[in-house]
Amino acid sequence: MNDQEYSLQEAILYSHKMAQLTKGIWKAIEKDWQDWVKPFNLNLNEHHILWIAYYLRGATISEISKFGVMHVSTAFNFSKKLEQRGLLTFSKKEEDKRNTYVKLTNEGISLFEETIDDHDPERNSVMNASLPLKNLYGKFPEFQELESIVRQLYGDEYIEILDRSLKSLSEETKP
Amino acid sequence: MNDQEYSLQEAILYSHKMAQLTKGIWKAIEKDWQDWVKPFNLNLNEHHILWIAYYLRGATISEISKFGVMHVSTAFNFSKKLEQRGLLTFSKKEEDKRNTYVKLTNEGISLFEETIDDHDPERNSVMNASLPLKNLYGKFPEFQELESIVRQLYGDEYIEILDRSLKSLSEETKP
Repeated sequence: MNDQEYSLQEAILYSHKMAQLTKGIWKAIEKDWQDWVKPFNLNLNEHHILWIAYYLRGATISEISKFGVMHVSTAFNFSKKLEQRGLLTFSKKEEDKRNTYVKLTNEGISLFEETIDDHDPERNSVMNASLPLKNLYGKFPEFQELESIVRQLYGDEYIEILDRSLKSLSEETKP
Repeated sequence: MNDQEYSLQEAILYSHKMAQLTKGIWKAIEKDWQDWVKPFNLNLNEHHILWIAYYLRGATISEISKFGVMHVSTAFNFSKKLEQRGLLTFSKKEEDKRNTYVKLTNEGISLFEETIDDHDPERNSVMNASLPLKNLYGKFPEFQELESIVRQLYGDEYIEILDRSLKSLSEETKP
């Protein structure tokens, strides 16, 4: 333990609070996400893979694993299932034979866009739970401290992919 | 959709960012927690139940379910396993026969304290990832916005239990 930086008590209080808050929020997001994509015969991991491949306009299995926060084998196995349903294709790039590259088919793009059209923020509990903050501050919270922690945990690349996907999302001109 | 409060695009950008940040942090906490308690032949749910019953000095199954963010059946089934290992006992209170009350045995208390003594903040990745913020601000972040969202999601009771458990933790005089 590093006495100069924090006490053991500080550490355990902080860890406990962090665990209780992020577990609570993530479990609510997970439940809403499952309820949202179930009618499309997708589970959360499958939808997250479609999401990443859609907004990044194609992605490698290792990008999906990293940004989807799932094991490489989970990313590969669920991508395989989506490939078998004709929603995406696998390929290798001539200049980089080691990485498997995932690209949505037209059918995959349509299905993904259907899920987005079907998304109803009113049924999104974390969204609704954030409205008092939005009303108070005039905008949704930005969570820069969380972002800094995630950057430390997963590296700059994770935040770069997040920024790319947010940029791609905001360029969408869908109504 | 409520046009007065937010646009659909704002909603989806916010939800996406929130999902990516809390998934990243919760998955890191989950992995560290599992690694921490595995040598004691406990899984995360079982340890969370011991944690809640220890710091609340006894708890009902419904308090465990609520504060542990697990289904009532999960809370009950894992509590049952801990009871079979002699780590806790079940009882009913004379004045409230509907709720099952969980209390750690001396053996449960000892085992839980052993896990706490064995906790090494150096192996806690979220803790380490938070140190740059701690060094910058002189204290760990307090996440009041997250707390406000969790309060909206789970009610005042959740935050009251969190405060009780943090208070109980900080009264501990263990070295």
